Amino acid sequence: MEQKLRTDSTRVQEVRARIRDGEHTGPTSGLAHGFVHANLVLLPEEFAFDFLKFCVRNPKPCPILEVTEAGSPEPVTTAPGADLRTDVPRYRVYEDGELMEEPQDILHHWRDDLVGFLIGCSFTFEAALLGAGLRVAHLDQGRNVPMYITDRQCVPSGPFSGPLVVSMRPYEPEELPLVVSVTGRYPSMHGAPLHVGDPEALGIRDLAKPEFGEPVGIERGQMPVFWACGVTPQAVAMKARPPLMVTHSPGHMFITERRHSEYEV
Amino acid sequence: MEQKLRTDSTRVQEVRARIRDGEHTGPTSGLAHGFVHANLVLLPEEFAFDFLKFCVRNPKPCPILEVTEAGSPEPVTTAPGADLRTDVPRYRVYEDGELMEEPQDILHHWRDDLVGFLIGCSFTFEAALLGAGLRVAHLDQGRNVPMYITDRQCVPSGPFSGPLVVSMRPYEPEELPLVVSVTGRYPSMHGAPLHVGDPEALGIRDLAKPEFGEPVGIERGQMPVFWACGVTPQAVAMKARPPLMVTHSPGHMFITERRHSEYEV
Repeated sequence: MEQKLRTDSTRVQEVRARIRDGEHTGPTSGLAHGFVHANLVLLPEEFAFDFLKFCVRNPKPCPILEVTEAGSPEPVTTAPGADLRTDVPRYRVYEDGELMEEPQDILHHWRDDLVGFLIGCSFTFEAALLGAGLRVAHLDQGRNVPMYITDRQCVPSGPFSGPLVVSMRPYEPEELPLVVSVTGRYPSMHGAPLHVGDPEALGIRDLAKPEFGEPVGIERGQMPVFWACGVTPQAVAMKARPPLMVTHSPGHMFITERRHSEYEV
Repeated sequence: MEQKLRTDSTRVQEVRARIRDGEHTGPTSGLAHGFVHANLVLLPEEFAFDFLKFCVRNPKPCPILEVTEAGSPEPVTTAPGADLRTDVPRYRVYEDGELMEEPQDILHHWRDDLVGFLIGCSFTFEAALLGAGLRVAHLDQGRNVPMYITDRQCVPSGPFSGPLVVSMRPYEPEELPLVVSVTGRYPSMHGAPLHVGDPEALGIRDLAKPEFGEPVGIERGQMPVFWACGVTPQAVAMKARPPLMVTHSPGHMFITERRHSEYEV
């Protein structure tokens, strides 16, 4: 058991080294099986309290896995030895809320007042859905999960406010109890669905036109199931127009050394 | 159902009004059955980010239920209309880490830079234990739960650091699976136990001499079961010696309008 854990941890570090060296620059889906991938937001310290407060007030879309020390690029708890400046395959750099660049590292953007926020990602509950024998439609269809801006407002905090973003996965009604119970075991990874069945109830007009990701075919007899989405804090932070914000590029996540099971309740 | 909810919510407000008016000044155990009682910490805004970061880094002892806006005494999410300056039966006021006073309100201590932190309390999982047909020894014995300072260090954040404090409840080995699964459903209320059986493994020398609360008799065949305790953040904040800190007095909790079941996963 000890041997197995050591081997697996090495594998994560190897994956991260390939990313750091620019050998892997694509999405991280499927990499380091069993390990938690995280959303990344980096903000100047002056915004850090209000942003952390925003996340605490909106735990379903913004489950915090780790907050780094200002100026330190190392997430000491979830990935000791890693470097948030180089270990994400592709970043997005925003200045005053405008996307400026999508680089493979942010060494030249780094500032000594940057605080890193690692936020739970749906890859964890998708692994649990697959593990329970359920299908995940967008994976079957080789697409990014479709994401929609809802008419529900997050609880604001300082300059951070805006609508909740949800992701959608279709399931049959008889699968719903299992879908809810399996994903509900991961409250730090968006948890159980927020809504089942009626896109209009969330202010979503057209499932074929997601604001982020790609549309996914819904088969006859399936219902749309909606989860709080980790894009929410990015969208909200972008709107607050901080002088500098760095995030991962969608799908290009930061890979931690924590296992999915460590977040299961 | 709607009618029932309205009636219950009124009852909470009536309890809170009695506390506000000084008619109830004792512990809150047993009041407003079904509703979440919370630990309170009030700190100046300059300490708020580091303290919130401390809580996020140590979620088992410090599960955050709400963070208020600086200067606002109203916990708008968990108890809209309540007033953190008057609605706790008894407070503790610390200056530079020293206990100065245990007043029934803090109107004259209030400052416009105070941020309130409401933190989950074991009353919620104790209600769940009772609901599952299990006994809670210190309640049977009419005592406060015994609490111990361990040799495990919390993950520090800025000036906040210190040992984990645990509470102890004795159970029989055959009760343990139910004890773990029932309390594990409330990760926002300290969740599943941290340790079972060996006080020495936590650096606890003598179960008969708790640092806080009162000793509880352990019957033949019972084992001590330890949970992360909400006294941890108070002890840690006291040690950081902020110019002003206000907390509830032990057992004299803030009663929210949220039901236990809202935090069940």
